[in-house]
Amino acid sequence: MSDAGLAFSAVDHGHMARALQLAERARFSARPNPVVGCVIAHGPAVVGEGFHIRAGGPHAEVHALRMAGERARGATAYVTLEPCAHYGRTPPCALALIQAGVARVVCAVGDPFDQVAGGGFELLRQAGIVVEVGLMAAAARELNIGFFTRIEQGRPFVRIKLAASLDGRTALADGASQWITGPQARADVQHWRARAGAVLTGAGTVLADDPRLDVRLEPGIEVATGLRVVLDAGLRSLARANVRSGCTPTLYLHAPQAAVPAGDWGSAQFAPVAVAADGRLELAAVLAALAARGINEVHVEAGAQLCGALVAADLYDELLLYQAPTLLGDAARPLLAGLAIEAMAQQRRLQLCEALMVGQDLRLRLRPRS
Amino acid sequence: MSDAGLAFSAVDHGHMARALQLAERARFSARPNPVVGCVIAHGPAVVGEGFHIRAGGPHAEVHALRMAGERARGATAYVTLEPCAHYGRTPPCALALIQAGVARVVCAVGDPFDQVAGGGFELLRQAGIVVEVGLMAAAARELNIGFFTRIEQGRPFVRIKLAASLDGRTALADGASQWITGPQARADVQHWRARAGAVLTGAGTVLADDPRLDVRLEPGIEVATGLRVVLDAGLRSLARANVRSGCTPTLYLHAPQAAVPAGDWGSAQFAPVAVAADGRLELAAVLAALAARGINEVHVEAGAQLCGALVAADLYDELLLYQAPTLLGDAARPLLAGLAIEAMAQQRRLQLCEALMVGQDLRLRLRPRS
Repeated sequence: MSDAGLAFSAVDHGHMARALQLAERARFSARPNPVVGCVIAHGPAVVGEGFHIRAGGPHAEVHALRMAGERARGATAYVTLEPCAHYGRTPPCALALIQAGVARVVCAVGDPFDQVAGGGFELLRQAGIVVEVGLMAAAARELNIGFFTRIEQGRPFVRIKLAASLDGRTALADGASQWITGPQARADVQHWRARAGAVLTGAGTVLADDPRLDVRLEPGIEVATGLRVVLDAGLRSLARANVRSGCTPTLYLHAPQAAVPAGDWGSAQFAPVAVAADGRLELAAVLAALAARGINEVHVEAGAQLCGALVAADLYDELLLYQAPTLLGDAARPLLAGLAIEAMAQQRRLQLCEALMVGQDLRLRLRPRS
Repeated sequence: MSDAGLAFSAVDHGHMARALQLAERARFSARPNPVVGCVIAHGPAVVGEGFHIRAGGPHAEVHALRMAGERARGATAYVTLEPCAHYGRTPPCALALIQAGVARVVCAVGDPFDQVAGGGFELLRQAGIVVEVGLMAAAARELNIGFFTRIEQGRPFVRIKLAASLDGRTALADGASQWITGPQARADVQHWRARAGAVLTGAGTVLADDPRLDVRLEPGIEVATGLRVVLDAGLRSLARANVRSGCTPTLYLHAPQAAVPAGDWGSAQFAPVAVAADGRLELAAVLAALAARGINEVHVEAGAQLCGALVAADLYDELLLYQAPTLLGDAARPLLAGLAIEAMAQQRRLQLCEALMVGQDLRLRLRPRS
């Protein structure tokens, strides 16, 4: 069912671009569902549009069909992800498109989720609807990169946030780091926390910094409830309470042999995870546990040890590096620990995906070279 | 004699932009002279243009006047730097403009050089020519930043070239560094060497890497002869001969008490420089010695010690940092040594002037925040 080679028109591209824009509006709220946008049009004329705002609410297609009403008949529907074919929390969107009399469905990318995986396209085609797949597929996939990663690899997309000086240092020798990056960079981080299903840190960071790790955005932006995750094999960081403050739930992942000590830990959750030979939690097991909870994207804000361990184990998908135009000197703390690179062939090469000024700082997004 | 507040027309801007472009063509060849461009025009119509190609050759104004011939009469001359008023290797350009009958001279910036310093403008005004100064002054100053720095501060403009990984490392623990940056970045470095009057390194780098530090550009590009400078207090790196290879002269700066050992050092030059309490050469004295030799820009390619010492002493004007999208780990070698920063207030903050992709690497140009 390859649709490669299909020639889409400029009008098709325009509508799909709009649908992708609509989908992105729900980047903080649709979790754990993928973001989806839909545009319904006759030629260049848009008659309906919508996006999936939050889990449990109507899908993008339903919003767009409601807006279009009778004008959906004979129209083309542009959808950023394959319409669903199963009865979940809402009836299948493929059926809704058929019932509305849509003549053609243009879709950016198929849904890899077991209960869809081509079933949506099949339903539509059986109903005589022209189905064309692949328009702006790369952008559509990128929009739901966490969802695709979880379904395809059984683990979330892991984004490691780092902030460093030009000489690759995150703090002075005594731990002082306020402030290396500027206020704009620190505000920007909140958006990345907000789009992730989980913010992950280690016991060392909790003990040293007692961070809140919650999402602080401007009022009025809908953000789905996330999860704070603390990797704490021995449950030694419980005395630091900021990471349990506010409404965002907190999950402590600990070694199987560690017992949760008596005490009032609020609404904190606890779950055991297998440990490696060195006594640390198995990172692959950590990520599998988060995937099982429906986490698509993990945002890591941790120290050099945990970040270094994720990189060393190749269990990451992106570095989000805020680089401040400053020098801290060679006595300051390193960006990553434990990489153990002994020959140039072992260096960890990445691909720079984006470089952007955020205030006075440079924000780099990099991905491992595959 | 402030000319601030003058309103220059779009035509004026266009011609001066062209003159700046022309000047830049000589960025590798005009040394030790400043680069200068000149456009002669009647309204929008250009009748002559030229630039100063090499020291001892005709100045920009002379090239442009020759091209314009009789059409220079009544025209406006756009010059990127104040026309000279003294008899040097060539007669004064101000006189040439007067004799050609130019009606108006628009100049980007005055020449700070003692023997000019407003004298050119004065000559022109005495001859009844309208003189307007300050059009695109910042760009013109930047074009000759080394020349201005040397005249105004008595030392060259110091640009430190660095190449590092994302985690701020320049080599593995064993010194391996081939290759961190890509071939495009390494080729780009040649252009920065070519525009500098001197390429500076330390004895440690010569001993470790035996570099040539000459300029390798595509054939056909005219490059004025430069100077390689080795800071070698004890003259301990003489056995490494690559830095004396080829046609570019090499200058060893050494401690006054160090004697040049007997041997065939080719055309190498030797000069004593004062030493500091730690036995290292006084960096300020090094730079003063280079300024005295007419060096406008110094391009530093050295190890973490020397680069760190220049930064620690605030004796630098720009970092040229090639950042490779790779991680080398915390056992690898640091970018700069000896900064001795013990509190965040001591961090060395810079201003990012430019970020550019060069191949797969990111090239950052940064200047100390004043």
